[in-house]
Amino acid sequence: MRFMETPDNAAQPANDAADAEAAEAPTGVAAQDWAKASADPQYRAAVVDLLGALAYGELAAFERLAEDAKLAPTLADKAELAKMASAEFHHFEQLRDRLAAIGVEPTEAMEPFVAALDGFHRQTAPSDWLEGLVKAYVGDSIASDFYREVAVRLDADTRGLVLGVLDDTGHASFAVEKVRAAIEADPRVGGRLALWARRLMGEALSQSQRVVADRDALSTMLVGGVADGFDLAEVGRMFSRITEAHTKRMAALGLAA
Amino acid sequence: MRFMETPDNAAQPANDAADAEAAEAPTGVAAQDWAKASADPQYRAAVVDLLGALAYGELAAFERLAEDAKLAPTLADKAELAKMASAEFHHFEQLRDRLAAIGVEPTEAMEPFVAALDGFHRQTAPSDWLEGLVKAYVGDSIASDFYREVAVRLDADTRGLVLGVLDDTGHASFAVEKVRAAIEADPRVGGRLALWARRLMGEALSQSQRVVADRDALSTMLVGGVADGFDLAEVGRMFSRITEAHTKRMAALGLAA
Repeated sequence: MRFMETPDNAAQPANDAADAEAAEAPTGVAAQDWAKASADPQYRAAVVDLLGALAYGELAAFERLAEDAKLAPTLADKAELAKMASAEFHHFEQLRDRLAAIGVEPTEAMEPFVAALDGFHRQTAPSDWLEGLVKAYVGDSIASDFYREVAVRLDADTRGLVLGVLDDTGHASFAVEKVRAAIEADPRVGGRLALWARRLMGEALSQSQRVVADRDALSTMLVGGVADGFDLAEVGRMFSRITEAHTKRMAALGLAA
Repeated sequence: MRFMETPDNAAQPANDAADAEAAEAPTGVAAQDWAKASADPQYRAAVVDLLGALAYGELAAFERLAEDAKLAPTLADKAELAKMASAEFHHFEQLRDRLAAIGVEPTEAMEPFVAALDGFHRQTAPSDWLEGLVKAYVGDSIASDFYREVAVRLDADTRGLVLGVLDDTGHASFAVEKVRAAIEADPRVGGRLALWARRLMGEALSQSQRVVADRDALSTMLVGGVADGFDLAEVGRMFSRITEAHTKRMAALGLAA
């Protein structure tokens, strides 16, 4: 698609996905705006699901970061996490406002995703400051990669909104710096955090599967049919790209994936 | 003191003060800007204390509201509390930036107030959603009244900043509406919450005394000397006004104070 003709960069798998398609002219939903694309009720339902999941994800991220702020070793660290939490909240506001603007009750759109996201956060409550940082970094990055992959298949209006709220809130470089310093100070910390990151990845995958199994419109959009859909082989490639990016991020943290 | 000669209006003590002031030409620190007023090292130290206390108060309020958001009975309530938390964080940012702008390390200015504020929040952790709402409403209102009283004694620049960050974040009407509805649905709730509010007031007073006893420059500004200071009798009247406003707010909630 025309808007993704830039060279590969493994840290941003969405670009890879786009490259494969770059040779072709934009077709289908990706060439349309919301007014046109939403005439298809199944596409509309899939986007409502996507925005609802993303909105609740931002609200849950706000809560998680605010909670982690309590574990911060210094006031400056606490303020930094509060800043990120606040940024996530403003992303939530944009998504909620868009849902309202297209005539959807935001809480109704979010409800189907509460159980899975709350379940993920409950299963992966960090026991200390470093686990919280790794979780925020790994979790946000994987979610970001996923939404970027999906974004290229969306109508232009929805795509702009989704890419906008995925803007880095400054968390990545903060987390990398703090975690690397902690591992340098005590290398044993690295082993513990590497295990923790694997558990996060496993829990994230299992909760995502739960969501996809429950939401017909959303899964149909992901595996083909609606939008410039994936086929199943493409979904497999998408997960490979996301996993590969995860491995690189773990290395950046100084952890074995 | 000249700025206290008008009739009381317990709900908005600072406005009274400002009204009274309009009748006479401003004198002393209140007529100066920061550049001039801060030449007095004791005034400067008092303002650094005041901004530090206020900044940490906003950061702690952010944490408390984010924590309370977890108790919210609906997604809409959760989003509402997250919005207020985010507003408190932006107030914190303004105060932190001002401290940095006048050459003070913000975390150093906040540190002296961490123990008292954390102590207050630890002693008054709400056990449910309604207690959280009452605490946020009562606590913010009392803090607000206090800072408004102090603000009229500050140089023009500091006064503008302090009054700006005290802007209502929308919490008051939200809390009043929810608490009144809960008491109407079950009048016994009113008795429990009235006890709770008394405990909050008692704990707030005891922690404030601790702060005032510890911080010389700040207390000197409050009881006279620096700035357009109070005398002790005036401090007594200030506490009467704040207590009276508290009683009126309790009545607005449907609670006996």
